[in-house]
Amino acid sequence: MWTYRAPLRDMQFVIFELLPVAADWSRTGAFAQLDAGTVMEILHGAARFASERLLPLNASGDAQGCHFEAGSVRTPAGFAAAYREFCEAGWPALACDPEAGGQGLPQLVNAALYEMLNAANHAWTMYPGLAHGAYECLRAFASEPLKREYLGRIVDGTWLATMCLTEPQAGSDLSKVATRAEAQHDGSYLITGSKIFISGGEQDLTPNIVHMLLARLPDSPPGTRGLSLFLVPKLECAAGGFRRNAVYCDAIEKKLGIRGSATCLMRFEGARGWLIGEPHRGLAAMFVMMNAARLHVGLQGLGHGEAAFQNALRYALERVQGARPIAEHAAVRRTLLTLRAFTEGQRALAYWCAHLLDVAQAHPDAGERARAADLAALLTPVVKSFLTENGYGCASAALQVWGGYGYLREYGIEQCLRDSRIALIYEGTNEIQSLDLLTRKVLGEGGNARLDALLQLLLAEASAAKDVGLVPFAETLATLLAQLRQATRALRTDASEDPELPQRVAGDYTRLLGLLMLGGLWARAARLAARHDRTDPFYRSKADTAQFYFDYLLPEASWRLRLIESGRRPLPHLSAPAAGRGRR
Amino acid sequence: MWTYRAPLRDMQFVIFELLPVAADWSRTGAFAQLDAGTVMEILHGAARFASERLLPLNASGDAQGCHFEAGSVRTPAGFAAAYREFCEAGWPALACDPEAGGQGLPQLVNAALYEMLNAANHAWTMYPGLAHGAYECLRAFASEPLKREYLGRIVDGTWLATMCLTEPQAGSDLSKVATRAEAQHDGSYLITGSKIFISGGEQDLTPNIVHMLLARLPDSPPGTRGLSLFLVPKLECAAGGFRRNAVYCDAIEKKLGIRGSATCLMRFEGARGWLIGEPHRGLAAMFVMMNAARLHVGLQGLGHGEAAFQNALRYALERVQGARPIAEHAAVRRTLLTLRAFTEGQRALAYWCAHLLDVAQAHPDAGERARAADLAALLTPVVKSFLTENGYGCASAALQVWGGYGYLREYGIEQCLRDSRIALIYEGTNEIQSLDLLTRKVLGEGGNARLDALLQLLLAEASAAKDVGLVPFAETLATLLAQLRQATRALRTDASEDPELPQRVAGDYTRLLGLLMLGGLWARAARLAARHDRTDPFYRSKADTAQFYFDYLLPEASWRLRLIESGRRPLPHLSAPAAGRGRR
Repeated sequence: MWTYRAPLRDMQFVIFELLPVAADWSRTGAFAQLDAGTVMEILHGAARFASERLLPLNASGDAQGCHFEAGSVRTPAGFAAAYREFCEAGWPALACDPEAGGQGLPQLVNAALYEMLNAANHAWTMYPGLAHGAYECLRAFASEPLKREYLGRIVDGTWLATMCLTEPQAGSDLSKVATRAEAQHDGSYLITGSKIFISGGEQDLTPNIVHMLLARLPDSPPGTRGLSLFLVPKLECAAGGFRRNAVYCDAIEKKLGIRGSATCLMRFEGARGWLIGEPHRGLAAMFVMMNAARLHVGLQGLGHGEAAFQNALRYALERVQGARPIAEHAAVRRTLLTLRAFTEGQRALAYWCAHLLDVAQAHPDAGERARAADLAALLTPVVKSFLTENGYGCASAALQVWGGYGYLREYGIEQCLRDSRIALIYEGTNEIQSLDLLTRKVLGEGGNARLDALLQLLLAEASAAKDVGLVPFAETLATLLAQLRQATRALRTDASEDPELPQRVAGDYTRLLGLLMLGGLWARAARLAARHDRTDPFYRSKADTAQFYFDYLLPEASWRLRLIESGRRPLPHLSAPAAGRGRR
Repeated sequence: MWTYRAPLRDMQFVIFELLPVAADWSRTGAFAQLDAGTVMEILHGAARFASERLLPLNASGDAQGCHFEAGSVRTPAGFAAAYREFCEAGWPALACDPEAGGQGLPQLVNAALYEMLNAANHAWTMYPGLAHGAYECLRAFASEPLKREYLGRIVDGTWLATMCLTEPQAGSDLSKVATRAEAQHDGSYLITGSKIFISGGEQDLTPNIVHMLLARLPDSPPGTRGLSLFLVPKLECAAGGFRRNAVYCDAIEKKLGIRGSATCLMRFEGARGWLIGEPHRGLAAMFVMMNAARLHVGLQGLGHGEAAFQNALRYALERVQGARPIAEHAAVRRTLLTLRAFTEGQRALAYWCAHLLDVAQAHPDAGERARAADLAALLTPVVKSFLTENGYGCASAALQVWGGYGYLREYGIEQCLRDSRIALIYEGTNEIQSLDLLTRKVLGEGGNARLDALLQLLLAEASAAKDVGLVPFAETLATLLAQLRQATRALRTDASEDPELPQRVAGDYTRLLGLLMLGGLWARAARLAARHDRTDPFYRSKADTAQFYFDYLLPEASWRLRLIESGRRPLPHLSAPAAGRGRR
């Protein structure tokens, strides 16, 4: 039986001991009154919802999938009812501004909520998953009349939102977006074009669906600088009620996983839409939504890793082979520790990123806000790609613990593997995240200072570890950080002569940075654990897992440094196989 | 569109240039007359069968799956007809002894055949996949009357075979096998018990199914030394025809992949069977079948890697993003080169292993036969685990090349990913292969000499590379081989004080050995390519891919050495999460 129990004790540890957030919150107006008891009560409620309402729909939703008929989508049994409960409990409003009808809690709490939702039922969570990003985007860029009409209904969950970027001919290359927008006399626009891979483009959870869509105005310059952002509702407000807009779902995709989530092919046939933000500045506005989405995709990887770990641990403790539970076997133990070390470390990293967004939003000091925003910008592509790669890797490693049973549908881990795979692809493939990280965030404008801010924090962690006697951790971390600095300097220098170099090694660089951040966070966890007696199983596990991370997982960093060095070698080009009997 | 075209040019290169086999064949009686033209004609025929008959059934077989009703299994449409053609063309008899009705070709040619079958349609290939192992097992251990009755029909494909090992309570631990066998007065046995995960335990391709089954005699000692091997047919020969034996299929499994292959839950209710080999020596006899099966599972990984590479390359050359085919993008190019370097290197390794089995069987010199058999025993667990891990890894890396399309069913790569995942599990999980390699083949009896024989060959390769000016390859390889030797010595010494040590690092050791063998084979390929002009695209690709392998893939070996060093650190034990609200 696949189960899920939210790791509330670890969430509490990360939020209130490891990061810890209290000092930052106390400086803000918005969160100054928030205490740990309140936050943990909220997370307990979320844990109950995830385990009791969403988990039971996870396997059945996968088995049933979505059904498409005559333009309509039927989601799996129970999805709509669970969504109603989700709204009635106020979860969509959790981290929205009280002025807009929200509960005004930090992004960090919303991140913990979404970790649990994703861990329990990734496919279901796809539906509300983009609402918060749409809320932030509308709040920042929409006109007052649009805000009045849409914002409240998105905050309370009455309507759901989508992101309409990708087109058949475009893929990851948004400069090829061809959907057109024509201005009308009443200030609206008529939108014409096709969009693919639209999660929740059509569904039966909400009466209306708010599409956030990139399109091109007639006078637009070519490329991504010519894109404008539009709000295109399924139902538009009209005199005396709502009118069906010319937005059509033509098909839904058959997929490897997240089968309960409707991935739609959408057609806009002169559908009425409204401009969000400035003409030709749509991508900048959409990035607000995309950055929120990228953190949330990272939380999917985290959720899958956690679910895989919990279930594999339980199975390994129950399953006896050769007179011992298989959890005792060395190979299985190493797998389980890998899952624990990555998952708990990644929780700290993801929550840190979410907390930085809160500081960037709510800190009274403008300099602190800017610093936090800049660090969050550096962390986001790592959180998206490192956590999803490891989430999928953990699911596959966990599957192996079940042996042959892992390959069967009834044990649940094969669904976890299938569902987790999408997160490496959407919201910008992991390859694109890595390019963003290395070529833009690190080697691009302001990159030196941005990276340095991170490295200073990690070095301070190494130094603090040394002070409490964790000398090997401190030395390993300091050495690797110096090597990272050196490697970055070399990349910066050599890229001027060999502009492709960063592209060849961006994936290694991303993993390297992810591994070092987890190294810093595990060093900190070990330092906190050292204050506690080893008879306390929670802190003993933290100390042991930190040691395991430094022994067995962090060595990957040296390999990645080596590969970054190898990347100076040009990569040969590949051509089509020759005709004839052989391949070449 | 998912396609497959057999890599015949590369097969020819491996068999007749890289290994090359001609000198060994010329010394044998059996293969002395075999020439390259004949072998390539045969492989061309196999390639046609794979591409024209099996490939078109791959996606449809996955979509339809197998149907179970009232004890019978219906395989996907077209499977049975393709199997009839397969038999009519004589493929099952390819590598069987002419005395038994076979065509007397080398195992190596059969390995190439199975690479193609697996690449085109893994699920279909599961049905004939165990026949050759059953043939070898029966030929070595069955009584003459049994051979007369069964061998010819297995050789010509009239009947198919299964391996019945696993039981619900046993899993990987065969010492727990509880199926009972009771001797009857007529020399037969009545078999009672349940077996799970029986591929092709029931099917509609052949009228009879020959189950090779491990069971326990009443007087058997406990553990694996008490297992005996039995032949249990679905239909038993009786006066005047065939009689249905008490062998029942109770269910088939719903699986992540290879859905066209029926994975059966089998019940033996006093079914009549016959002893194969000595009582209580069943595992030794079964190992003949299992070793053949392990090489064939490695070929599944190879086939999946090849299919993933071909299709990803074609897609990447066709798909344009940002004005260039994505095959030009550095990250995609690196992925494609990784797929090529692993797949072509692994073809060389798998075929080498198959060729060693031929030498072990057919060489006139007993010493040569023994040396080849010993080396094949060392290679087999690496072939099984390294090739399947990389086959699955290549499928996942390839999927990323398609971006969002890769996640959709219609592009084929997601099926490749699902199908390839099983190979890490069955025929002994990869963890068990690694333990076999390190604790038995390397650190066990005769391990020093066995490993040394391999290392001498690889050192000779390094030395030959140096002679033709490939100095960096030679030095890298020689350094790593010395480090491997040193690490092995340390493991041998330290294991006496810390017996769990080899179990903690067996997985790393297996990858290390696999990486070094591919290093030796790529050095050899580069040496052969150096004789050709760089205008020849085939040899230029070999030279470039060898360079890529040494630059970008072989560095993993240093990381593995480092992890073997880390393995001295004990692994903490994990316990069940504490009750209460949190996880612990």
